[in-house]
Order: sequence, then structure tokens, then C-alpha cells
Amino acid sequence: MEEELSVSYITMPKGFKANGVSAGMKCSDPANINESTPKYAILDMGMVYSDTLCNVAGVYTSNLVKGHSLVRSMDIIENKGKAKGIIINSKVANAGVGHIGVEDAAKVAETASSLLGCDPSEILTASTGVIGSRLPLDKMTAAIPSLVNGLSADEEAAHNAQYAMMTTDTVPKEVSAQIELTDGKTVTISGMAKGSGMIHPNLATMICVFTTDCGIESASLKKMLQKAVKYTFNRVSVDGDTSVCDMVTVFANGASGVSIEEGTEDYALFESALCKLSEDISRMLAADGEGATKFVEIEVHGAKDEKDAKLIVTSVARSPLCKTAFFGEDANIGRILTAVGYSGASFDPEKVDIRLSGLLMYKDGAAVAFDEEEASRLLAEHDLKVDITLYEGDAYDRMFTCDFSYDYVKINGSYRT
Amino acid sequence: MEEELSVSYITMPKGFKANGVSAGMKCSDPANINESTPKYAILDMGMVYSDTLCNVAGVYTSNLVKGHSLVRSMDIIENKGKAKGIIINSKVANAGVGHIGVEDAAKVAETASSLLGCDPSEILTASTGVIGSRLPLDKMTAAIPSLVNGLSADEEAAHNAQYAMMTTDTVPKEVSAQIELTDGKTVTISGMAKGSGMIHPNLATMICVFTTDCGIESASLKKMLQKAVKYTFNRVSVDGDTSVCDMVTVFANGASGVSIEEGTEDYALFESALCKLSEDISRMLAADGEGATKFVEIEVHGAKDEKDAKLIVTSVARSPLCKTAFFGEDANIGRILTAVGYSGASFDPEKVDIRLSGLLMYKDGAAVAFDEEEASRLLAEHDLKVDITLYEGDAYDRMFTCDFSYDYVKINGSYRT
Repeated sequence: MEEELSVSYITMPKGFKANGVSAGMKCSDPANINESTPKYAILDMGMVYSDTLCNVAGVYTSNLVKGHSLVRSMDIIENKGKAKGIIINSKVANAGVGHIGVEDAAKVAETASSLLGCDPSEILTASTGVIGSRLPLDKMTAAIPSLVNGLSADEEAAHNAQYAMMTTDTVPKEVSAQIELTDGKTVTISGMAKGSGMIHPNLATMICVFTTDCGIESASLKKMLQKAVKYTFNRVSVDGDTSVCDMVTVFANGASGVSIEEGTEDYALFESALCKLSEDISRMLAADGEGATKFVEIEVHGAKDEKDAKLIVTSVARSPLCKTAFFGEDANIGRILTAVGYSGASFDPEKVDIRLSGLLMYKDGAAVAFDEEEASRLLAEHDLKVDITLYEGDAYDRMFTCDFSYDYVKINGSYRT
Repeated sequence: MEEELSVSYITMPKGFKANGVSAGMKCSDPANINESTPKYAILDMGMVYSDTLCNVAGVYTSNLVKGHSLVRSMDIIENKGKAKGIIINSKVANAGVGHIGVEDAAKVAETASSLLGCDPSEILTASTGVIGSRLPLDKMTAAIPSLVNGLSADEEAAHNAQYAMMTTDTVPKEVSAQIELTDGKTVTISGMAKGSGMIHPNLATMICVFTTDCGIESASLKKMLQKAVKYTFNRVSVDGDTSVCDMVTVFANGASGVSIEEGTEDYALFESALCKLSEDISRMLAADGEGATKFVEIEVHGAKDEKDAKLIVTSVARSPLCKTAFFGEDANIGRILTAVGYSGASFDPEKVDIRLSGLLMYKDGAAVAFDEEEASRLLAEHDLKVDITLYEGDAYDRMFTCDFSYDYVKINGSYRT
């Protein structure tokens, strides 16, 4: 049994601390800061840390080009499966700068580990922001002492870690759940994520950190995480661009005193909670897509096989024409049909049904008359749903996306400068 | 030797007539028309016609869902390879309405053919516009007599045919060339096209009609056309959406008295001219992409093989993040690198060079310092060029695209209504 908590932050599982500080990367001039400046516009270095060594697992971007901070973390997670914490900076992605980028990431970890008295390889690194610029090491190493010294299990410190990783995000993305296991004991999982643009499987321009006080082997954690991301993080598309810095990682420190093993009911309970939290964060990521005014869930039923099902939901979720129609609240079923048609999936065009937020608009390969007023009312909602039904097999898939608005263009027309 | 002509229209080759009229689909209330209303906002039915039977060839959308007017034309072209003319309407795509759509298209052809005294199967049909609505047959059949009676080789009538096929296009797209063959005789080719949004290989939401007075067999014409479209029409991407109504077709009526055959120098001269005109129109299509403020040519050199080369140019040309950066005149090399990275092509990320309009910005897998002023000057130009060089092989490809602007969202947020 799992209970989602009304308040969520990354240090709710026992034994975790966090913090977020400003290294002056987002805002270099304090004169520009006043009382109404949101924290996510100031804080740019965040950290999550456990005094005891954690088992860790991760899944990473499929982009052939990978950020240097990410490559360093992948190496640690895949080869050791253990770490104590992670430092995440926003503003500069530390990607596409050549080998010096790997050294810069190592330097960040070393500076923190020497203050914490741990091994540099126990500190993972993640960076998000502009590609092709070096990390401002002077600013970052100068900020690390206050980052490390301020580590705390407090709610405020935990939220600060979340704020520090946000770039074009407009809302924090934090989730927590308490899981009651079969013997009545409880463990806790929390997650925090950033991600708004350059989002498409696999993965998104997103970084997500999960913490849990449950004890679980790295190999099991990895298997569970891979299962959790498949229909959640790997089913979020904001703009079809898969970034070079994406990572979802889980830290399990065992501080609850409870351990779980594969094949048990407790394992299944924990896995189900991790999947649920991953889905919650994935929905938040899509809803907070750059410039988004709508959250859109695309579902396909009756596809020939898994591959076709995925092709179809991906094609609709990526289509700028569908996405601008969602923005315009236009019941343009033709564009959805078109995107299904060029998806590469095989199906009989004479046997396609399409529903928009439950309203049947296309049946047996032809548009059907629908109540335009009803359609307008449904399209005015924030949450939209597209259901595509084929009659080729029983494969199902779904994807979370958002609309394309003027603001998407505005945000991305001048992100770098 | 081929000479491009300064004035271009579809009836320049001998023996062709054309016309364009209003059936009241674009503008049903004459009160809304005044002297300054452009013709493309009024005319909605166009026709091209040759008194003598032509050999015809066509290439069509790869979308599994195909418009009913298109399906009818495909059937005629592929099975007979002969026709006298084509009727093209804008505003309603005649797609996604079920079998009645095929009957509607046939009715349009029948009405015209009975006036012209030819067989209905000699009149091709093409429709472009909103998907899921039936053709307004009453309006169309009422307009056909004036469409047919006004057929003429005059320049004005020819331009009217072009105007009638335009939807969100902002400029006509007409090309003509006179080809001097080896014996000093000349033949002429003209082309006209529409297409602005829902454009991505293969093909685009585009319809293109070529006419020539050269005599050439349908089979040869088809082979030649397929070659011509490969690196031209099939390399235009506006938004990644491949429509259900796309077609490029060539009518060859032999009225010049000159015939060409495969394997001859004349054939090569003609083919080269057709390729060149196809490229010209393709550039016009990209430059007139919906809301476009920039024309962008993406080139890749040194890819492992043809497949990878195409994956890379397609990935960059489709990326909303690259396209909004072009709009914002932002030298965001990281987004180009990212799109190359997730393209699916295999390459060594440490050996990638990227130039923006000639300026080297990324070399050997790392960003290089560049003159920001020079970059700003280059990015302010209307025509941008992205060159990506890998060192994996000798495959080359290129794609024509445009930027993503506020206006793209505006145009597409409410196209249907």
C-alpha cells in the first residue's frame, strides 16, 4: 500500500540532506535581486547527500552526444553502483566543450568531497543549461563550501535543491510517497526533477533524482528503474528534441532499516510506487513544457504491435501541426489523422477511430459529425486527451505532451543570449 | 543547354491552357472582396489542360492515409499513364471523408470532361485544404463551366491557376526553362506549386504540376521525375508533418514536335533541367514555409552512408529548438549538435565540425571561440546555411527548411476555424 504525501521534498526519506545555493550563474548581479525574485531565478547549484553510502542506479539519454558531467556520473553508476550524493548545476550544460568538460566535472566533485571527507567518486555530477560553454569553475568552487555546509534534512533546504536545478521550468516538480510493506514497516521514496524544453524520449532535457531509505541492491534498483521509466519518462515529448544531459537516478541508502529483495511482495509494492511517482513527474514535465498552455495525453489502442503503437503516439505527440491546433483549441481531427498516417505504423486507414477528450470525431476512416459546442468546451479544458483506436491487434501505448504556443517560440528564440 | 526564363507560367510550353476561378470556397461573400484583395484569397479552382493527350507521371505522398482526389489521380497515372489535364481545388482537401470522397472527385472530373468532350479519366484531380470535410460539390460544379470556358494559354489565365491552388502560401511558385537540345531545337518546361505548411518528405502538403511540350514516354517521365524529386521535393521540411494530399505530376504533350528518348544526350539535358526546376521550387517552398522569416539549408558531409546522411539533415531540419533559434538569430550551436546526436546516425562525437553560414563554431567535438559580431551579422541574413562535417565516410545530403516563428503558431493555431 502506498500513500502519496501532500507535502513532498527530496529529503523525506531518512538519512538524506540537501541544499541549493547561488554561484552567480543564473544571476551574477545581486542588484537585480529583490524580494519578489523567485528562488529558482537565483539558485543554481543544488546537492543531495546521504552520510551513508547508497546503492544507485540510473538511466540516461540515448543521444550519441552526451554531456561531460553526465558521462562522469554514468561511469560511476555503471561501474560501482554506489554513491553518497549528487551535485547538480543549472545554466551551463557542460556539454560539447571537449575533454576539459570531464575534468571540470571532476573538479566540482573533488571540491565537495574534500569538504565532506568522502571520495570524489562518491559524488555524482549533473549539469543542465547551455551547450558549448565551459562551467564557470571559479564561481562554482567558491559556492561549494556554502552548498556543503548548508546541507540539511529541512524542508526548505530540500526545496532549494529543487529550485537550483530549474532552468525554463515554471513550477517545482517534487513527489513523495510512503509505502507500507507487508510487515507493517514503512519506507519512503521522494523525487525531484527539472525539465521543460528539449524534451523527447529517451529521455528529456531533464534530470530527476529519486531518494529512498529502503535498502535495495543496485542491480535490482536498476531493473526497477528501467521498468519505471519505460512508460513514464520515456513517454514525455515536449518538442521532439532529446537532450545530451538527461538522467534519472535513484539513491537507496537503507536508512529505514528495511531491505527488499526481488521476487517478494514488498519488491512489487516498492516498484509500483516508483512507477507511480515516475508517472506523476512525467505528467508534471509535460504540463510544464516550455510555453505550454495544455497538457495532452495521447493514447493508442488496438495497434498491430508495440512498435507500431509507439510510432503512432510519438508521431502525434511530435507533430507541430497537432500541437498548434491544441494551442488554438481547434478540433482539427485531420491533423491527428495525418500524423497517424505518416507515423510509419501499418494499419487500414478505413478502420481508424479518433476521440478527442472522449468525443468521437472520426470513425471507420471518415470524419463524423460532432457537436461543435461540445468540442469547444472540451478543448477549452487544460487537460486534453486523444484516443486513437485501430483494429489491427491489441497493442497499447500512450504519451504525455503539451501544446505549442507563441511562448514556446519566444522562450526558444533567444535562450542562449 | 537550359535557359531559365525571367517570366514563368504554366502555359509557356506549347499546347497548354490554364485557368483559375472562384467557386466561393475561399470567399463565399463577394462583399468581402475589394480592389486590394489578392487573387489568391479569392480563386479556389484551377485547371491545366492540353487539347492533345499527354503522357503523365507522378510521385505521391508516403502517408498511409491518402486524400480521395489524390487516390483517383494515382490510379489513372499509374494504370494509364495518360491524361489531358488536372483540376485542383484549394480550401477542402477531400480527405478522410470515406468512399464518398472518391465519388466527389469523380463528379468534379465528369462535369469538366463533359464540357471538354473528353473522357473523365483524362482529367486528374487534386485537392488541398482542410481534412475531414466533403467537397462543396454544388459550388464546384457551378464554377466548372467558367473554369473550362476560360481555359487559355494567356499568362494571366496561367497565373490564375497558380493563385487558385494557394492556401497559406504567401507567394506564387512558378518556374519555367527553355532547353536547347543537341539539334538546336528547343523544348520548354514550366512548373507551378503550392505548399507552405504540413511539409516534410515525402512529400509535403504540396501539389506541383509540371508541363512540357517535349515528347517523352510515360515510363521515362516517371523515372526522370523520381530522380528529380529525390534531393529536391523530398528534401523540404517545414514542420515535419507529411500531408495526405501531396503530389508532383508532369504532363508531356509533345506539342513542340520534339521527342526525346532514354540514353540520349537530349534526355540528359531535359532531366537536368527538370531537376533544376524541382530544386528551384523546393527552395521556394521552404522559404515560404508557414510563418517563415528565414530560409535554411542544412548540409552534411562525410557521413558513414546515405542513410545516416539523411537522418542527420532530417533531424536538424525537424528540430523545433534549432528552428526557433534560427528565428531568434541565436548562434545556438548546441542545439544543432544535439539534433545531430539524437538523429540515430552513428558517428564519433569527438569528430564533428559545424559551420553556421560558413563560420566555424564547433570543431573536433568541442565548441570553438567565434566572433559573436560576425555570427550576428550572418544570422541576420535571410538565407542561413548549416554545414555539418563528420569523418565517417563520404556520404552527403542536404535539406531545405525554414525557421519557426510566432506566426507559424498563429497560422496553425486556428487554421480550420
